[in-house]
Amino acid sequence: MLIVAVDKTSGVPVYRQICDRVACLIDAGTLAPGDRLPPTRVMARTAGVHRSSVLRAYGELWALGYLESRPGSYTTIRRRAPPTASVPGNGGSSLDWAAITNPAIRAVRAGSDNLVSQSPTPPNVIDLSRLSADRRLTPIEDVRRSIRMVLADEGRELLDYGDPAGYRPLREAIARHMRVHGVAVEADEVVVTAGAQHALDLVHRLLAAPGARVIVESPTYSAALSLMRLHGVDPVEVPMGPDGMDLDRVAGAMRRAKPAFVYTMPSFQNPTGVTTSHAHRERLLALGESHKVPIVEDGFEEEMKYFGKAALPIKSIDRRGIVIYVGTFSKVVFPGLRLGWIAAPRACIERVVAVARASCLSGNPLAQAVAARFCQSGRYEAHLRRIHTVYRRRMQTMLAGLAGHMPDGVEWTTPTGGYTLWLTVKDRRVSEVALYQRLLGGGVKVSPGRVFFAAPPRGAAFRVSIACVTDEEIAEATRRLGQALARALHE
Amino acid sequence: MLIVAVDKTSGVPVYRQICDRVACLIDAGTLAPGDRLPPTRVMARTAGVHRSSVLRAYGELWALGYLESRPGSYTTIRRRAPPTASVPGNGGSSLDWAAITNPAIRAVRAGSDNLVSQSPTPPNVIDLSRLSADRRLTPIEDVRRSIRMVLADEGRELLDYGDPAGYRPLREAIARHMRVHGVAVEADEVVVTAGAQHALDLVHRLLAAPGARVIVESPTYSAALSLMRLHGVDPVEVPMGPDGMDLDRVAGAMRRAKPAFVYTMPSFQNPTGVTTSHAHRERLLALGESHKVPIVEDGFEEEMKYFGKAALPIKSIDRRGIVIYVGTFSKVVFPGLRLGWIAAPRACIERVVAVARASCLSGNPLAQAVAARFCQSGRYEAHLRRIHTVYRRRMQTMLAGLAGHMPDGVEWTTPTGGYTLWLTVKDRRVSEVALYQRLLGGGVKVSPGRVFFAAPPRGAAFRVSIACVTDEEIAEATRRLGQALARALHE
Repeated sequence: MLIVAVDKTSGVPVYRQICDRVACLIDAGTLAPGDRLPPTRVMARTAGVHRSSVLRAYGELWALGYLESRPGSYTTIRRRAPPTASVPGNGGSSLDWAAITNPAIRAVRAGSDNLVSQSPTPPNVIDLSRLSADRRLTPIEDVRRSIRMVLADEGRELLDYGDPAGYRPLREAIARHMRVHGVAVEADEVVVTAGAQHALDLVHRLLAAPGARVIVESPTYSAALSLMRLHGVDPVEVPMGPDGMDLDRVAGAMRRAKPAFVYTMPSFQNPTGVTTSHAHRERLLALGESHKVPIVEDGFEEEMKYFGKAALPIKSIDRRGIVIYVGTFSKVVFPGLRLGWIAAPRACIERVVAVARASCLSGNPLAQAVAARFCQSGRYEAHLRRIHTVYRRRMQTMLAGLAGHMPDGVEWTTPTGGYTLWLTVKDRRVSEVALYQRLLGGGVKVSPGRVFFAAPPRGAAFRVSIACVTDEEIAEATRRLGQALARALHE
Repeated sequence: MLIVAVDKTSGVPVYRQICDRVACLIDAGTLAPGDRLPPTRVMARTAGVHRSSVLRAYGELWALGYLESRPGSYTTIRRRAPPTASVPGNGGSSLDWAAITNPAIRAVRAGSDNLVSQSPTPPNVIDLSRLSADRRLTPIEDVRRSIRMVLADEGRELLDYGDPAGYRPLREAIARHMRVHGVAVEADEVVVTAGAQHALDLVHRLLAAPGARVIVESPTYSAALSLMRLHGVDPVEVPMGPDGMDLDRVAGAMRRAKPAFVYTMPSFQNPTGVTTSHAHRERLLALGESHKVPIVEDGFEEEMKYFGKAALPIKSIDRRGIVIYVGTFSKVVFPGLRLGWIAAPRACIERVVAVARASCLSGNPLAQAVAARFCQSGRYEAHLRRIHTVYRRRMQTMLAGLAGHMPDGVEWTTPTGGYTLWLTVKDRRVSEVALYQRLLGGGVKVSPGRVFFAAPPRGAAFRVSIACVTDEEIAEATRRLGQALARALHE
């Protein structure tokens, strides 16, 4: 007969003492699989405790896998495998994960390792590498209010699975919002995604089989290149000029072999900050039309038109329905809610929804409803006005600082909005990696140019972002950049 | 000189009248690209309105894409393409989307069309087809409280991008929770996903190239089959018996050609409700070990052990690190937060995180923090206790109802937990589609068996779920099922 000694003065709850003691006896092998524990009534009597404590202890033991069944029925000790051990190295695994996983994964991991900018920023270093909504500008009270309101109105529905195409009122808000940018789409030509990256992933799944060619701007968004590695897609890099991709080269590439699509960021391109002209947009669109190649337009910073000259999206002149527009909230507000979208012809959207359903069932209806409420209430517009004022000043500070401090031999772009600029060292013999380290040593973290190329060219270039730095930090950063560059290029 | 007539008695705000009038003139071609609007001061004077109204009107026109620049600098009318028209049919697109999209998409869409159960349920029909946490049992107040608390504590951080591996405290809570089920994993052997479906998608991306073979139980989870179609994977169907997959066939399939992995749901299998024995788990694991084939264990209803006999996950006896465990919150609470996880050896987890980062940057930190808080506060355990009581009764009602009402010639499984049972008509000549319609006509919606097979066998089978129906509905549903089946099989 098993008797458990309980110390009522120890401060440890009685049920826990019983539970621990029995678990210990089982672990030690004193109690073996198939043995029975005494009925709860008997155990309570012999231990001099309430039966409820014994019931709770047995319940706990059952939950821990020590007992065959819940108390009340049988209380047999089960054959319990010792917990799996955590072993260092290969994680204690007998499988060779490098060998059995898709070869693309290796390329993706290698690509990520290249992202020097993902390493933590040392103290006293000004970080010009982040391209993300500035956390300090988050309208936290407005978001809280939106959450409270939607939970009060439809809490249960929003915690359940949602429509794989997205929460209807958000699709409507996005469609309205696209119309403001000159794009007339209806709610059912919009699908909500978990951010722009997810949208691009869906587009790849839809259009790009392994081995497919995709025309990309060069340099381009580094995480789009990661995505292409993941999908085994071959990026065809077309150099960027002051007015976007070289369209003669695009035409040539389309003639040589039909690409799955063209990937372009016509406004405030990442990383260069270049915005293409209306003429460029028209000609790119015409090329896509005549070669029947979809244009994937990434409007990730559509809202960041804080200087006068705004250009309408390519999608706004897409009369023949060949443009797949990718949008996102993340570059202006709450990136953590993971909300982006695709706007495209219905025949495309239906297929995107089928892929989204098969791969993740539905998005997060609560997050989607919060964004819808945030838009409907006018808070989104108010937030944009506020950050426009901030970023107009930050960009002006950056441009003035560069003009004042850059040494000869360094060129940079002059964006008409957005977050990023592109710095190039004219002398192509300069090593980017060495220079990057020099700049870091000089107290400024930028993004090394090579991460924005599939095949990085010779020479040194850097992306500089004003997204998460104050005016004062920008002024100081340009001073430091100027000093470090002058010293490095002078040697 | 442009003069706009304003009617101050019309009730339409002055700025809106100006905006509408100017837009109208531009749309009509009266004002052409390159034309200038009068300075705001002049417009205000000639229209007899406040200058602020004119400023607002110009701002609106700029936002609508009618003007080259914001008011205050220049106010030139821009070349504005007419909004793209929404055309029915192919969505006005000149592209043949069926031809340019991946062939897998067609299979995925066709698979979805098969899901008869996705059609809306007619009134007065009792729905035994839903396999999802019952919305009526959602602990909405507890969730609200968790949201309030995490927003108060770390609102700004949670609205920003998060760790692609998941919010650390949630990874820790999940690891703790896995230990309760006999699986000793550390937080960094866990990656948080946007639900179990997303987890399975990541596993496919990691392990299964197009054309790969995957061993699956037959019948199996219909959405896993959709995922395999999406990935171009070839499911090798191994029939289920009373104790799970036929392991001799699994061994044979492994010998013939190495599969990418085995996909199994050892507890409360979807759709059959079967839970395998410890011996079955050990032998399946041994097969995977000797053939070096990973076992993907889907523990989607691990928490639904409301009858005595619980079995520990295969992962708990996985000493050689070949099991990839997939878990989810969605089958017991807040599916809308889209939270699942993968627990696996570190070498595997690192690769999963690389894929997750490349395909969606990060999950939703707010949702993840809410779940972590919900677990830490003990509310998760309390919720499980509550729903166990509910589901134990529902399952008992279902089993009693079937025993009382089923006609001869119908068999069903007897689950030891979970939500689903599997009904089979012994006479293989019976048409499932016809019978499904008869049952629907008789007032009960079930899931047709064919959606759970890649190659549906002859005969009729149905999945019956107790997830979202009350005891009273279950009692009535079994009565209706019995009547309809008796009539159909008697003819």
